[in-house]
Parts: sequence; C-alpha cells; structure tokens
Amino acid sequence: MAETRKWVYLFPEGNAEMRDLLGGKGAGLCEMTNAGLPVPPGFTITTEACREYYARDKDFPPAMWEQALVALHRIETETGKGFGDPQKPLLVSVRSGAKFSMPGMMDTVLNLGLNDETMRGIIKLTGDERFAYDIYRRFIQMFGKIALNVEGFDEIFDRFKQKVGAKLDTDLDADNLKEIASEFKGLVERETGKAFPDDPKKQLMLAINAVFESWNSRRAISYRNFNNIPHDLGTAVSVVSMVFGNMGNDSGTGVVFTRDPATGERLLYGEYLANAQGEDVVAGIRTPHNVIDLKDEMPDIYGELSRIADKLETHYRDIQDFEFTVERRKLYMLQTRTGKRTAKAALKIAVDMVNEGLITKEEAIGRIEPGQVSQLLLPRFDEKAKEEIKNRDGLLAKGLNASPGAASGKAVFDPDRAEEMASGGESVILVRPETTPDDVHGMLKAKGILTCRGGATSHAAVVARGLGKPCIAGCEALQIDLEGRFFRVNGGIIRENDVISIDGTTGEVFRGGIPSVDPDFSKEAELLTLLGWADEVRRLGVWANADYPRDAAKALEFGCEGIGLCRTEHMFFEEERLPIVHKMILGASEASDDYHKALEDLVRFQTEDFKGIFRVMAGKPVVIRLLDPPLHEFLPSYEELLVETTELRIKGDDPTKLAEREKLLRSVDSMREMNPMLGLRGCRLGIMFEDIYKMQLHAILTACGELMREGIDVHPEIMVPLVSHANEIKVIRDELEGVAREVESEFGFTIPCKVGTMIEIPRAALTADEVATYAEFFSFGTNDLTQTTFGCSRDDAEGKFLLQYVERGILPQNPFQVLDRRGVGELIKTGVELGRKTRPELKIGICGEHGGDPSSIEFCHQVGLDYVSCSPFRVPVARLAAAHAALGVAERDK
Amino acid sequence: MAETRKWVYLFPEGNAEMRDLLGGKGAGLCEMTNAGLPVPPGFTITTEACREYYARDKDFPPAMWEQALVALHRIETETGKGFGDPQKPLLVSVRSGAKFSMPGMMDTVLNLGLNDETMRGIIKLTGDERFAYDIYRRFIQMFGKIALNVEGFDEIFDRFKQKVGAKLDTDLDADNLKEIASEFKGLVERETGKAFPDDPKKQLMLAINAVFESWNSRRAISYRNFNNIPHDLGTAVSVVSMVFGNMGNDSGTGVVFTRDPATGERLLYGEYLANAQGEDVVAGIRTPHNVIDLKDEMPDIYGELSRIADKLETHYRDIQDFEFTVERRKLYMLQTRTGKRTAKAALKIAVDMVNEGLITKEEAIGRIEPGQVSQLLLPRFDEKAKEEIKNRDGLLAKGLNASPGAASGKAVFDPDRAEEMASGGESVILVRPETTPDDVHGMLKAKGILTCRGGATSHAAVVARGLGKPCIAGCEALQIDLEGRFFRVNGGIIRENDVISIDGTTGEVFRGGIPSVDPDFSKEAELLTLLGWADEVRRLGVWANADYPRDAAKALEFGCEGIGLCRTEHMFFEEERLPIVHKMILGASEASDDYHKALEDLVRFQTEDFKGIFRVMAGKPVVIRLLDPPLHEFLPSYEELLVETTELRIKGDDPTKLAEREKLLRSVDSMREMNPMLGLRGCRLGIMFEDIYKMQLHAILTACGELMREGIDVHPEIMVPLVSHANEIKVIRDELEGVAREVESEFGFTIPCKVGTMIEIPRAALTADEVATYAEFFSFGTNDLTQTTFGCSRDDAEGKFLLQYVERGILPQNPFQVLDRRGVGELIKTGVELGRKTRPELKIGICGEHGGDPSSIEFCHQVGLDYVSCSPFRVPVARLAAAHAALGVAERDK
Repeated sequence: MAETRKWVYLFPEGNAEMRDLLGGKGAGLCEMTNAGLPVPPGFTITTEACREYYARDKDFPPAMWEQALVALHRIETETGKGFGDPQKPLLVSVRSGAKFSMPGMMDTVLNLGLNDETMRGIIKLTGDERFAYDIYRRFIQMFGKIALNVEGFDEIFDRFKQKVGAKLDTDLDADNLKEIASEFKGLVERETGKAFPDDPKKQLMLAINAVFESWNSRRAISYRNFNNIPHDLGTAVSVVSMVFGNMGNDSGTGVVFTRDPATGERLLYGEYLANAQGEDVVAGIRTPHNVIDLKDEMPDIYGELSRIADKLETHYRDIQDFEFTVERRKLYMLQTRTGKRTAKAALKIAVDMVNEGLITKEEAIGRIEPGQVSQLLLPRFDEKAKEEIKNRDGLLAKGLNASPGAASGKAVFDPDRAEEMASGGESVILVRPETTPDDVHGMLKAKGILTCRGGATSHAAVVARGLGKPCIAGCEALQIDLEGRFFRVNGGIIRENDVISIDGTTGEVFRGGIPSVDPDFSKEAELLTLLGWADEVRRLGVWANADYPRDAAKALEFGCEGIGLCRTEHMFFEEERLPIVHKMILGASEASDDYHKALEDLVRFQTEDFKGIFRVMAGKPVVIRLLDPPLHEFLPSYEELLVETTELRIKGDDPTKLAEREKLLRSVDSMREMNPMLGLRGCRLGIMFEDIYKMQLHAILTACGELMREGIDVHPEIMVPLVSHANEIKVIRDELEGVAREVESEFGFTIPCKVGTMIEIPRAALTADEVATYAEFFSFGTNDLTQTTFGCSRDDAEGKFLLQYVERGILPQNPFQVLDRRGVGELIKTGVELGRKTRPELKIGICGEHGGDPSSIEFCHQVGLDYVSCSPFRVPVARLAAAHAALGVAERDK
Repeated sequence: MAETRKWVYLFPEGNAEMRDLLGGKGAGLCEMTNAGLPVPPGFTITTEACREYYARDKDFPPAMWEQALVALHRIETETGKGFGDPQKPLLVSVRSGAKFSMPGMMDTVLNLGLNDETMRGIIKLTGDERFAYDIYRRFIQMFGKIALNVEGFDEIFDRFKQKVGAKLDTDLDADNLKEIASEFKGLVERETGKAFPDDPKKQLMLAINAVFESWNSRRAISYRNFNNIPHDLGTAVSVVSMVFGNMGNDSGTGVVFTRDPATGERLLYGEYLANAQGEDVVAGIRTPHNVIDLKDEMPDIYGELSRIADKLETHYRDIQDFEFTVERRKLYMLQTRTGKRTAKAALKIAVDMVNEGLITKEEAIGRIEPGQVSQLLLPRFDEKAKEEIKNRDGLLAKGLNASPGAASGKAVFDPDRAEEMASGGESVILVRPETTPDDVHGMLKAKGILTCRGGATSHAAVVARGLGKPCIAGCEALQIDLEGRFFRVNGGIIRENDVISIDGTTGEVFRGGIPSVDPDFSKEAELLTLLGWADEVRRLGVWANADYPRDAAKALEFGCEGIGLCRTEHMFFEEERLPIVHKMILGASEASDDYHKALEDLVRFQTEDFKGIFRVMAGKPVVIRLLDPPLHEFLPSYEELLVETTELRIKGDDPTKLAEREKLLRSVDSMREMNPMLGLRGCRLGIMFEDIYKMQLHAILTACGELMREGIDVHPEIMVPLVSHANEIKVIRDELEGVAREVESEFGFTIPCKVGTMIEIPRAALTADEVATYAEFFSFGTNDLTQTTFGCSRDDAEGKFLLQYVERGILPQNPFQVLDRRGVGELIKTGVELGRKTRPELKIGICGEHGGDPSSIEFCHQVGLDYVSCSPFRVPVARLAAAHAALGVAERDK
C-alpha cells in the first residue's frame, strides 16, 4: 500500500508560501497563526485533495476524512469545546479558497455543527434565543442549498413574513425563527426524502463535499475562463472554529485598514460594531463606530489592534485590510489582505514605507501603477465645491467608475444633438441607456458619457476609455426617457440642457456644474519624491512633444529631458500667418512675386518661433520636425468654396467675386487628394517644393545662430518626416547643407545641427540600414506607423470600426493607444536592429502617442530605444513607466 | 629584374574569352581569326597595358612598345607590305575597345602610316589621286585632333570650300584636297610648334597613347558613371592593317545580317557598295545594293559570304551582324557582333535555331525578353494601312522609340486642353517640346506622347513607359509653336486637332489616323511553341485576374491555369444593379425592408455572376475576393449632391426634391472618409455589415451547388481582403461556416470550398503565422501592400511626385510597376516564411499588378510562391518570365 499522503494541515503547519496547496485563504490563516496573531483554530484540506476527489470520480481520497477528524479533535482540545457537544458546542465555518482569488464564485457554509441539541448550548452561552434561532435557520438554509441542493427556502421565508405581517427580517422574533427553522427542515425532508442531517460530522462531510463541487460550478468555470485561470487547480477547504462577536457588549466585530486607504495617512482606519457579527455590519441595521472609538471603549482591544496592525505591516510590508471579531473581550483575526487604496494613498504609503524602512525605493516604484500617476494629474473637481454640492444637494446617483476624469455639461440624450451642440461650442454630457456604434459621433464630441446599463467592458466604457473621456456606466438609479429627453433619479428629474457633473474616477453624478482644477505638480511632494527615485533607476530618457515655448516650459516642469517632437505646422495656422501661407501655397507653381514675398515673411516668423523654443530648452536637445501635412490642409475647404461658388453662380449678381472664387476653387481642387494621409506630405513636400523646407531650415539655423550670439546653448535636431526611401533624406540633407553654408557664412561660425528622420512608414523600418546612412537619429512616429502597418486611418477607423473591434475582442486593444507589439513592434525591432547595424551610435526615440503609454514604454525599453517623447502631461507617467520597465515590473494593460 | 609581361597579342593568339584582357573588339577579331575567317592581320595591346600606363603616370609599360613593333613586323610579313614603305605602304587603324561596349565614347585613328612618301604608293596602288588625298587629309585631321589635340580643322575646311565655291565635300577635287592637307599640316605646326609627325612609327606611338588617354575623357567617364561600369578596367588598343574597298570595281564594302533582323527569316540581309569604303555607305552618296545582288555581280564573293554567315552562326550560335570589305576580289571580315532584331524576329530566330539544332530550348527561352512578348501582343497599326499611308504621304518624321505601342489621335499642345478633350471622350496625342511634372495630368489622359527634345531617359519617356503609353521622344524634325498651337515638320504643318498617329515601337510619326489591330494569339505559331517550352521549365503557376466570364475565357486562351483574383465589386456597378446596391447600403443601418429586399435581389444576381465564371473555369481554381471597396464608392458623388442641393436651395422652387436630396446628401456625408484607402473597406465591411458578406458567400456556394448538380467540376476559393489581424479572417470564416451549413443542407451534398486571405497590409505579413491558422491560402495583394509599405497612395502619388521621383533617381523605378524587393519584398518573404511555419502546405500567390511584371515574377519564384496571377494579356509574358526565373535568366529591368 502506498504511503498515505498528507491531505490536512492544521493552521500552525502551513504558511503564506503554500498558496498552491492551501489556497489563498488557507495559506493566509496559516501565515497569521504562525505570525502569532490570534486566529481561531482550524485546519485546511489541500487543493491536492480536491484534485484527487475529481480524479477518483468525486470520492474523498483515502485517509483524508480520517486526517480531518484528527485535526478537528485538535481544535476541540484547543478551544475547549466539543463538536456536537450540547454544553459547549464547537461550531465551524467551512470555507472554499483556491490559489487565485475567485470572490463569490465558490461556496462557504457557516455555523456548521448546529442541531437541536447543540442549539441548547448556544442559547445558554449567548443568552439570546432569537440570535440562536436566526443562525440556526440560516445554517439550515445555507447548508440545505449548498450541500443538499435544495431550493425553496426563500419562498417559505417570504410566505411566513407575509403571514405574520413582518416587513423586515428583524420584525421576526425567536419563536417565528424557530418555526421557520422547523419548516426549512420539513422542506429538506420533502425534497431529499431524508431528514435534515443532525450529526455534525455528517454535516461536515457533506459541506466539504459541497465546497469541492463548487469548484466546478458553472459560474466558477465561466469566471476562470474569463480570467484565464486554469481549471485543474482545485480548491482548498478551510475549516475554522466559529467565533461570535455578538456575545454581548464585550464582543464585537470590525474591519480595519492599517493606514487610511483614501489619504495614505498612518492611522487605524475602519469600523467596529459592538455585540454584532459581520453580517450585521453589512446589513446596516446599526451604524458602526469609527474604530478609533475603541480607544475609549475597549482600550486593551484597541492597543492589541494597533500592535497587530504594526505586526501585519512589518510582516506583509504593505497596507493591510483585516477583519476581526472580539468574542468576550478576546480578539480573533479572521482575515487579512493587502488593502485597496486610492492613487493618492498608494503614493503616500509607498513613499512613507520607504522612509519607515519597510520597503526599498525599487519596491515603492513598483507599487505605483503609471496609470495612477496620470490619475493624480487629471483635472479633478474642486474638492471644496464638490463637498458643498454634496452637502447641499447630495449625490444625484452613483454608478460604475468606468473611465476616470471629471466633466460638467448639459445633459443631452441623443448623439446627433450632442454633436450639434458641442460643435456650437457647448459642453455636453451624453446620457444614454447604453451606447452603440451609432452613438460614437456624439461620444466623440461630448465632454463625458453617462449610461444606466452595462459594466466596465460595455461599449460606453471601452469607447470612453479609448477616447480618454470620463464615463460613468451602469448607473442603474437613472430612469431614462429618451423620447421625453429627461431622466428621473432618486425622485429628482434632469431634463435636456440641465447641467450635470460626472466624476468618472469615483462614479459620482451631481446636479449642476462643478469647477474643475488642474493639480499643482510642484506641490505633489510624494510624487516628486517617487519620480526622483524612478529617475535613478530608469534607462530610457523621457522627452516631450511640444510645439510652443509654453508647452516646452510645462514639459520641463514635469521633468522632461528634451523636446522629441516640435511640429512646425501649428505655427502656420496662426491668424496673422494663414493669409501669407495661402500666398505661398497658391503661388508655388509659378513661383510668383507673392510667393517669394510670402516665403520671406514666413522665414521671419519661423525664426522667432524657433528662438522661443530653443531659449526655453537651453542646454537640452530640441527635435524640430519639418513641415508634414499636405498643403491643402492650410487652404479653405473645398466643399465650402463649392457651395459658395454655386450660390454666386445661381444668384449671378457678383461676377467679379464669382470669378475670383472660382479661380480659388480650381486651385484648391487641383491640390485635393483622395487619401491625404498617403499623399503629397512630409518630406515629399520638401522635395517637390524645396523652397518651403529651405525656408524652415533657414529659420532654424538663423534662430540658433542668433541665440548662440547671446551665449545660449542650443541643440537643434532636424527631423525629416515620412521618409520611405533613404534617398529622400539624402536629398533633404543636401538641401540643408546648402542652407547651412549660407547661414553659417552670415554668422561667421558653425552651427551644430543633427539631421534625423521619423520612422513612420513600414518601408523606412524595413530599410533602416540604408536610411541610417543619412540619419543621425531615428524617431519612431508610431501614430503613422500604426496607421500604415494596419492599413487603417485613425480618423476613419476609430468611430467606424476600431473601437467596436476592441469591444468584440477582435483586437485586444486600440492599437493607437497601446502599441501593437506583434505587428508595429516587429517593425520597430527591425528598424532598431538595422539602423544600429549601419550606425551603432544611432540615437533612437519614439514620438507617437504611445510614448506616454506604460505598456508601450515598457516595449521601448525592451527593444533598446534611447528615449520616449510624449505630451507634457504624460511626462511623469513616462518617467515612472520607464523605471518600471528597467525594474522589470510587468504592466497590467499589455 | 621581373619577367617581362606579355602586353601584345597577335590576333591568332587570342579568343572570345579574353574580353577582360583584349576588350570586346580585340577578342572578337581574335576569335574570328582563329575561326578561320579572313580577318586583316593585326594585334591587340591589352587593357592591362592601359592600366599600367596610368599606374606609371602615363608612361608605356616597359617592353610594350618593343612587343608592338615585333607584332607590326609580323603583319608586314603577312601582308607583304611595309610600314612606311613608299612602294607598298602598310596602313593601319588604331582602335579602342574596352571590356564593355562604350560606343562612340573613345577614340580611333584610321589610315595611320600615311605621309608624303607613302602617299605615292597609295596613288599608284589605287590609281585614284582624289581618294588618296581625301584619306590623307582625313588622317591628318583625325590624328591631329585625337593624338595632338589640335582644333580648327573644320574651320579651314569650310573656309576653303567657300573660297572655291564648293557646296559639298564631293565638289572638291584632288588638288583642292591636297592643298587642304597641306594647310592642315600648317595648322598642326602652328598649334604644336612642331612639324606634323611624318614617321609612321611615331604616328603609331602617339595614336596608342591617344587611345589610352581617351579612356579617361570626360565623356567616357560620364558614360561609365551612367552605366555603372567600373573606372579601373582600362581599354585595349587594336592595331589592324587597313584594307580598302575602293580599289576599283572588284572591291567594295558591306554590312550583312545572317538572318532578316525584322522578320527572322533565314537569308543574307544587308547592303553592299562596290568600289567604296564604309564611310561612303554612311554618307549616302550612292545607293547601296542589296547584298543579294552580289550573287550575280560577284558569285564567288557571295558564296564566300554565305559560307562565312553559316560559320559565324555555327560559331556564335546567334544571328550575326558583320562588316566586310572586298579588296580586289579578296574578302575581309572587319567586325561581327550579335545582331539586333525585332521582337518578332527574335522569336522566330530562337525557335528556328532550336529546330536547326543550333541552340537548346532553354537557350531559346532565355533569348526572348518577356517584355518582347508583351510587345508582340500590343495593339499595333494595321500593317497594310500603315504601308498605304507611308506610300501615299510618306513618314511625317521619325524620333526615338521611347515607349512601345501605337496610337492615333488629335494633336494637342497643352496638357490642360489634352485633359479636357480626353475627358470629353476624344483621343488625343499630347505634343510638347519636352514634358515636365506640370504636364503629367495631360499625359495621364492622352493616348500617346510626342516630344521634340529629350532621350530615352527624359521625363516624357520615363513617364510614358510608366503609364504604358506609346511615346516618341526627341523627334527633332518637329518645330513646335506652342502659342500658335501647331508644329512644322519637313515642310508640312500639323495644327491642333489635326489627327496624327505615332508608333512608339518604331518611332514613326504619321499624318492622319491608322487603324490598330490586336494580334491573334492563336496564330502566333512561334510564340505558342516558345511558351510551350517555357511551360515545361517553369515552376511558378500562372493564373489570371478576371472579373467576368469573357475575361476568364481570354485568360484561358492565353494559357492561364486558374483565376487568382475575381473582384466582385465590378458586378455591383452594373446599371440595373446600382439602384439595388444603393438601397442595400442606405438601408443597412436600420435594416429596413428595402434593405432585405435588395439583399435578396443581389444574391440572385451574384449567383448568376459566379455560375458564369465557374462554368468557364471548370476544373480549375477560381479565387473570388469578397467585396473590398468602401461602400460610399457605390453612392452618388458628395460634391455633385452638394452643388445640386445648393442650387435647389437657392432657387427654392422644389422643396420636396430638396428635402429628398438633402436626406441623401446627409447619408452620403455620413459615409464619407478622410482616407478611404485606410477606412471601412475589405473584411472590415464584412465584419461591420455582415449581411453583405453573407449574401456573397451564399451566392458563391449556391452557384457551385447548382453547377455541381450539372456535373461541372468547380474549385471555389474564397478570399478575404484587407486582413490585418488573424481574428478578422476568423470571424469571416465563422460566418462562412454558418452559410455553408445552410446552403449544403439545401443541396444535400458538401460543396468543396477553400478560404484564404489577401496579404496586402504590412501587419498581415508580419503576423502571417497567426493569419495562416485560419487561411488555407495567401495571395499577396501587392498594389495595396506597396501603398501601405510606402505610405503612398497610387492615385495621389503617381502624378504628383512618384514619377518625378523616378526621373530624379530618388526611386530606382515605379514601385507600383516593379516590385520593391527591399521593402515590400521583405514583407513578402516574412509572410511566406511565417505562413508556411504554421501551415507547410499553404498555397501562396500574388495578385497585384506585379504578377505580370518579369522582374517581380522572378522575385516571386525566388521566394517560393506557388503562382502569380496577372491580367489576361500579361499571361504569356508571365509564362515566359516564370521560365526565365526557373532558368536563372536575369531580367534587365530589376
């Protein structure tokens, strides 16, 4: 016969490392027991036993039950109670607990060991007959349902309440409950054909069996499928002696965080209810006290809690959220777990714990999600204003915090109207029962989205997160009347055009507007500390995309080390310049006088533009991208001109104006493109209209020269966009050299200047070895690279199919937000490898929107980029994400 | 002292393999000498000597001159003449000749050895004083210029002619020429400060020196740069004893092809002029006789020429084009080279030579350029009509045959007008002095292009070839008056709107229209034979792109083995269907009754469409691509609707119509896209509007089912367009499976059907391993793949910058015509490797336009594709190109 395996572990026999074998709950109880914390005695049956149970076609493995009985006896000894003893009955809970948390998915039976005999002991011990019968009827109900698969308890209970005219459960007295318990037993006998099992050991055997079975309940299987948890792990079963917090005023129960989970402050934070069980706290019959009150009420218990909290933190090295029960002035720990906390608290706790010597800086860095940093920097409602509204009007409703951020606006109930009003400059919040692809055009224009149906993966939630807009989903309190254009909520009514405010970070909905504020980065002390540590460990540089001096200054404040993308096209759109730009474009083909004059004007404007940004960024590199968009983007709209000329033609009253507008129409028409994204733009412009690039090059070098004369340290890097063949950058390089000779001879000194290229076209990545011959740096333009790699224009795709693809699981995420490693990433890898083959010292960065996305930053680190460049507000996020990447902290959203 | 190297080879010492050492000309003369052909005795100084000359800073290598003198002495012995001998003077030519032919780029000196002494011998020998002084003054002129760098001969010559009132050179008599020779010598003395070198050996030394020098003349260097010929090869120098065809009526000279270079017929083809030198033939003073006349005039010479022709062909195994001279009834061979021939002749010669046992089938295949096959199949002018016009009106002019094909149309002198007239349905020929990028819009619409300036690499030539349109460039006889809108030519005048015809294959310009005809493939016996041989050796399958049964039938006639791309969108555009298609599209969002009715109608139409093509292609695979273009392509133009509604609005007289049109305008507007190429099309449509794809799938399977009932063998392959993520094809596959179950249960039998995908998006190639999980075949859609890989829309790019890029050498060729191996090709390689990793039996083809381009086909062979699919007319080209690829014959245009 094979050696008998150990199926059962008493709590002192296990520890936290044994999650695989004892499940999360079992291992946690063992760990606390061994840490000297007062855990009610108990034991855990292993996950191995569960697996063996299934392997044996649902039979307990040999010796398991016998080992459980031995362990049970040890508990009897330890507690001084007897299982089935009518005087001092031992009651136990039988709890499920797998390696991975599956909250609510498997079964648990409480108060096991009750029967008519042991009930006497309970009544005697508690002196509360009503309580005793209440837990008795609950036990029968729970056990009946879970272990015996009997349904129909609720119907009996409701019928009884009706009969005696009880509205609430609490209206029932001990006799009522006794009668109900008896009826429950009758139901079990009718349904199973057998009497309710009174033998506690029989009860225990059936309960263990039921917990094993619950591993393969339909909802447990779905949950595992959804969360990618393997199906062959099995669950452990923990049998714990019951303790009661409702044995009088020297008993009680509570939940405590070792620090304030909202602020991170170091204090005991939680609630306590005397003479109560956990269920009473949840039921909300009595208002729990702040745990701080225990200091006066039961100072010994409070002291013990404080010591336990310290011990837990020292032991687990993180904030803990624990449940305890006091039974007749004796404290029992029932559970402890890492406490959930707000972003603000997470940050303070991490920094404090480093200062307290509990954790290392690296651990602190790893504990903050980069996404939390961006949350800290989102515009948020002014706290005072929000509190005032809350105090005056209360919360209108609360829904699922589906996408963070805060927004106020007029409630609007259909997407067309939302689009129309928003286009007219109004702030709107789109309110819909739920959203569909047909709503997307409205969502694009709304400041925020509010729905009454759907969860965190609903269309509204996915699209809103995709758009970076606040969204509250599944706010079920709302009764929306689309035809009437209003919703009712908690007795109030909100009509179209009424202003509401939504806080997507908390899920709160308010009536009226709330001013929102940008947080002051320079005052976020903990954040500055943490980012300082992040800077020590990261290898990736963090640069920013900024077109104006004010943006560059902002980026510097956030800690950027250079400008990785300064787009020059925005400078062309400014009001006083646009007419000049028109002259330049429309005159280019015949190189008219107007054209040359326009170029001269523009070179002056651009020189000033560049001086501004170089001055702010003195001592740091500034990558200036030469003009990129197709020229027709600067011209009047073809459609508007078409309508205007048609009107003039039909009216026939202004032939001069008609002729002039028709000429313009023809010019604009001749420059239109079927697919501007794939047309005459980027360096193609610079090659076909070389004067424009020469003008820009002249302005850049002149700006540098003038600042150098002032003694300012400039580091210009000129970036050529949309290269697909090495010869393109070669041509521009040659243009530059000509201009440089000219400008340098004017100044009489050399102006240092690097030339590089965007890698934003697949071919540039595939031929990066050739491109690197002429490029001193690469910058991956992952917006365009994603567009061409997917053959998918962001403008056209996002509303029309891309977000729906994500929703339907066709794409794992929006590739314009999170870098597609398999496709786009492959091209980046190729580009890096080939580029460095030609030029080992090639400096390589990324300046697409992905430069601010943590998962994408991790990828950039892994493939050996030198820096990421992102929008100024993402710089702190990127600093942390780069540190995570360097430390090998896995990002969740990849 | 080092062993003396051999710098000089007598003709019997060399052979054809020694091109590197003796240059092309030298090696050819040696080869002929050794083949027993009557070559005038001579020797060659090696290219090594030339290299050494430069290495020694322009000094002859030691012993070279001495070796040359020894060789010269051997020639004296062999000819019985003496170098400098006044009685029987030996004259020689000194000719350049490098490894690679550089026609006209280097120098040659004729009649070397003349001086006042040897002149006497010449006069005595020829009895023609005028001739003697003519070659004397020519020698002084040529030698003076080349060896002594003296300029000014032409001026003296012209002045003299003026003085004596001579119009033509032939008006000068012997005395005149004698005087000129004397004046030439005076010039040399004045310019060089020395007397003209009368010593023949001195002359020879200087001439050899001059030929060495000509290797590094400016024009030679440019030519080598342009043709990628290395600069360190050096030239050989051949010294050949002069023979004279003008020593009486038993002398003469001629040029002969061993076969007719126009038709390929086996006969001596060429011209002969008695008592003449080569120069006289060129000067056109007398009309040469057909070489056939020699049969009567000098039967022995004719017999010898025939024997030599046979010997040359047996020796060189190809048609030869040789020069000969008869000096006093003795035949000398001066040069032989592979004869240039027309496509038609090339084909006949190759096939005949196989039948004659001269060459193998493989060699025959290798001798025909795939491009020549397409030339044979181009529409061409009806030969009879062309001859008639030629005989009646003569040729208008002849220019450079810059791009093949034939076209008639109205002469138009500016691109705007060309575009306008062509858009109105007229055929136009754009006539310009030369073209620039500003003309491209006109070139796009013209049937052909005619310019009077520029060569084979001019803008007009490059663009026209790019567009596949006939073009004659550099037709210098044209005097174009752009303002007057006409051109003068050979005394005639062609005004705007006069019809002209151009034959881009021959360079001929005609007045008036000439009907053109399509060649009858089934009657092209030699072509059918050659393609049959090609089929035996090629590995690649050749399929065709065809949307209609008639195209499929044509492709079958051309020898296709399957349909690789049947586009279904064309079927939607047919007149009776378009209104139904409108209903389907406009009704899709609300799934109206109209919408369902439209789908039902369309499924019937499509079933018939597919039955037609499957029936024609019975027994062969047919790849049907599901609907690809964005739906708005089927709707009315937004701009037209905008104008129409604006007009209706301003007029205000038909509010009902206005409302109806405005509604349509809104619908069309809601479907517009910024970049349709990157928008909602391809499988994205099939996923977002799944009914449309289901309708198509239903029609395909029903068509197959009905034909199978008739006993017809169908091989449907369903192709999903625009896949960028494996999940997309997975979704469509699932749709198909549903439809298949439905249709098959109707028929009661299984319908065989493969599902595959276009690989036309970079990401699909990069993730081909995942895509292949769901695809049984791949077809590279290289049009779209080129667009996305280059980030460049063909519609927008070709006219606006792409062709100019090619012209400026920024791109080596138009990547939409010749597959870009480095970029797009890399993605294809990746796609093939990854795809076969998942599914080793994966069938892979290409269906972009490149499937008919020889260089691209070679690439497809090299990377292991299974087949290429091209337009029906390119099938013969592809069959030959595939054979070339299999045989490793390098294509010229890569």
